[in-house]
Amino acid sequence: MRNIRLILAYDGTDFHGWQRQAEGQPTVQGLLECALGKLTGTPVTLHGSGRTDAGVHAANQVANFKTSCPIPCANLRNALNDLLPASVQVKDARQMPSAFHARYDAVSKTYRYRILLAPVASPFIARYAYHCPYPLDRRATKQAARYLDGEQDFTSFAASSGRAEEAEDEAPGTREGRGNVRTIIGSRLVWNARNSVLMYEVCGDGFLHHMVRTIVGTLIEVGRGKLKPADIQTILEARDRTRAGPTAPAHGLCLWKVQY
Amino acid sequence: MRNIRLILAYDGTDFHGWQRQAEGQPTVQGLLECALGKLTGTPVTLHGSGRTDAGVHAANQVANFKTSCPIPCANLRNALNDLLPASVQVKDARQMPSAFHARYDAVSKTYRYRILLAPVASPFIARYAYHCPYPLDRRATKQAARYLDGEQDFTSFAASSGRAEEAEDEAPGTREGRGNVRTIIGSRLVWNARNSVLMYEVCGDGFLHHMVRTIVGTLIEVGRGKLKPADIQTILEARDRTRAGPTAPAHGLCLWKVQY
Repeated sequence: MRNIRLILAYDGTDFHGWQRQAEGQPTVQGLLECALGKLTGTPVTLHGSGRTDAGVHAANQVANFKTSCPIPCANLRNALNDLLPASVQVKDARQMPSAFHARYDAVSKTYRYRILLAPVASPFIARYAYHCPYPLDRRATKQAARYLDGEQDFTSFAASSGRAEEAEDEAPGTREGRGNVRTIIGSRLVWNARNSVLMYEVCGDGFLHHMVRTIVGTLIEVGRGKLKPADIQTILEARDRTRAGPTAPAHGLCLWKVQY
Repeated sequence: MRNIRLILAYDGTDFHGWQRQAEGQPTVQGLLECALGKLTGTPVTLHGSGRTDAGVHAANQVANFKTSCPIPCANLRNALNDLLPASVQVKDARQMPSAFHARYDAVSKTYRYRILLAPVASPFIARYAYHCPYPLDRRATKQAARYLDGEQDFTSFAASSGRAEEAEDEAPGTREGRGNVRTIIGSRLVWNARNSVLMYEVCGDGFLHHMVRTIVGTLIEVGRGKLKPADIQTILEARDRTRAGPTAPAHGLCLWKVQY
């Protein structure tokens, strides 16, 4: 069996997230597995590096599947793109060693969250950025972002359901027992004056469910003056979801890169 | 009566063009007139600088309307944007002298057409650029674009219906009898290697129906080697629509600016 790795870009606006759903709601995984089934002639199970929620975009999602189909990778990519809608495209298809697994082998992930600070939201950016209706103190948000760096317990920034989504996604045995502790190796805000987008980029060895969006919602509270930058430290130590800010909307978030 | 000028941006993907339609298909003018009627409390007629076809975008469409409603312009803009979907937004609202007319006073217009030349179409660009499936000789297309400059008869590049759309749009008496003659004061292609977009920008004192899209379709034929750059001259002189290339798809086109 060949082991094929796909690099995917998708506009999440019209999808109910990555994960295949029984009810037939359109999902990225569902759509891809359907197209792969048509092309290879047999049912295909596609393993993504992790899930993305409804409305979240991806610039370089990674996934792999096994197949005995002999179609060369370049042809497979082109044929898949012909079958897929413009909102999901395969950037690369490559044959990998049989042991490669998009989920288990991922070392870290980088997400980007775009906050649009212009008075009017350009229709060409509005699908990919959260239009923040408040003026923000960008300097304070930048200071606050630094408190998230390092190995910490992110319980305060996880969905209050307590579901540690990433834990289910990881290789059995490799990272057991770490609970809600994750290592962030880059947490920064970049201001682009040209299009008035404040972009939060975060790289980490794993993310809890809603973690990036809750971090962003909390950074916005700092920008509005409702919290001070140093409050991030206190919120982290509290290990209590009610202490952090609201979860920022899905459409500002993009899975930017997966590192192996 | 106050005379208010609006500067508008819209993503044309989900609209049946600018012009209000009796059948209730969603159009940009229809949507705006409906929102303005709600805000001002009386029916409003909005005059655009010109029509845009179904699927065509606008970055700075200009329109004006008369009203006795006393809402200050900044509030009007914000209230309109709250009523409008993210795909249509008012960038500016300003009170003008009573004689100002968005259509009759327009001196020239600038359009941009984006051609995506990457092997895979990014889902984030695909709504706003035509993904050209052929490799193009960019140098030849650039040479060809220069032949369109100046005052010329553009019959060969007008929709074969012969409907001179712009003629209906112009002030009675000002430009009568010019037939299909228009003056192009800038026709150029710009290559952006970063996102693989070849952008055609054209500025002129008026455009016939489908003129920009037919120019682009013909430039692509030059890029493919099916026509030579100098053939543009011959096609112009023929005054025969069948001599030019196909009409490029609507979604690559954007009304970039209207000059007054």
